[in-house]
Amino acid sequence: MQLSHYIDHTLLKADAQLEPIQKLCAEAKDNKFFSVCVNTSYVATCAELLKDSSVKVCCVVGFPLGAMDSESKAWETRTAIKNGAHEIDMVIHVGALKDRRLDYVQNDIKAVVSAAQGHTVKVIIETSLLNDEDKKVACEAALAAGAHFVKTSTGFAGGGATVADVKLMKSIVGDKMQVKASGGIKDIGQALAMIEAGATRLGTSSGVALVRGDKIQGGY
Amino acid sequence: MQLSHYIDHTLLKADAQLEPIQKLCAEAKDNKFFSVCVNTSYVATCAELLKDSSVKVCCVVGFPLGAMDSESKAWETRTAIKNGAHEIDMVIHVGALKDRRLDYVQNDIKAVVSAAQGHTVKVIIETSLLNDEDKKVACEAALAAGAHFVKTSTGFAGGGATVADVKLMKSIVGDKMQVKASGGIKDIGQALAMIEAGATRLGTSSGVALVRGDKIQGGY
Repeated sequence: MQLSHYIDHTLLKADAQLEPIQKLCAEAKDNKFFSVCVNTSYVATCAELLKDSSVKVCCVVGFPLGAMDSESKAWETRTAIKNGAHEIDMVIHVGALKDRRLDYVQNDIKAVVSAAQGHTVKVIIETSLLNDEDKKVACEAALAAGAHFVKTSTGFAGGGATVADVKLMKSIVGDKMQVKASGGIKDIGQALAMIEAGATRLGTSSGVALVRGDKIQGGY
Repeated sequence: MQLSHYIDHTLLKADAQLEPIQKLCAEAKDNKFFSVCVNTSYVATCAELLKDSSVKVCCVVGFPLGAMDSESKAWETRTAIKNGAHEIDMVIHVGALKDRRLDYVQNDIKAVVSAAQGHTVKVIIETSLLNDEDKKVACEAALAAGAHFVKTSTGFAGGGATVADVKLMKSIVGDKMQVKASGGIKDIGQALAMIEAGATRLGTSSGVALVRGDKIQGGY
């Protein structure tokens, strides 16, 4: 097992410029990360930079609020796939989830899954805004809608991945979906704890330091 | 002059549920606000609730990061107009602005202006991420792209409207565009200072308190 293969190397800041995006891609290649995770305006650039590598392009949709209408989430997904994205990390409609308008929540996810045309879709449930019952319902909705992963956090709503949340999410989705832990994962100890709890993907902007820490500790 | 007519009554939180959105619309009618400002998933609901009133529906696009691809910003705009939005508050591509990729920045805005089919487009320049030269260039790009307003802030990036920024923005756009001050406007003194500095619209979630303060002070 290679820690680097778990990592979506992430840069989602509003003011991310081209040079840091190019550096992100170079680091992802050097370290054999699973993917780079960027906003949709940078998908085509990353796809071009990574075309001769094994690093995938992951992007976020309806991000970070999840309150964009469903048609636009689907359109953003379709456009990203067209531009070279391999994986889509969409944000759930948190308000509708809390209102228990589950038809809306599921159809919103289904619209993205359909637009993704078989590509991996991760549903960010934004755990820091949810209670445990909300988290369960969110995971069930993502499962019913045919998504592939549930993901803890955007990193923009305060809070981030916790071991307890990853365990809870894994207990709901079982072997039918994977869990991505994201938000605030900055050191090797946290990273390994998330994997131990059931995460098979880590979203972090600290991937290079994590892998360096991994090497220092003699590998995982 | 009525302070209430300056106000875009705003609720943009990720976890905004239906009931607070309904309350927002009722308050906007009661207080004769200019508009409600919501995320695009709530445009149709607000348009229905406000159809027999003078209150407009304003919505945000590519919000709050501005890093969504241009095609998707245009699609979100078109969908919002179709669903009953009267005004579009889009976020500029901050990274491209800082890179001085001005063709990209202008085309991104133009795509939204075109999709808005004559409806008012406000360009959020996100002042808290910009230096003064960036702010000038952002205003010039919005002007060149045919938008109608420049707007200070999303409210999601730290910071918010300042008198100095409103003055600076007004000095660039002159009489050709209007300025919307937004982010952190919570009392009547701030509101009046923004108007004094040149703002003709205020984005705030504190509109009801502002108008109450206005009445207590005997009107503006």
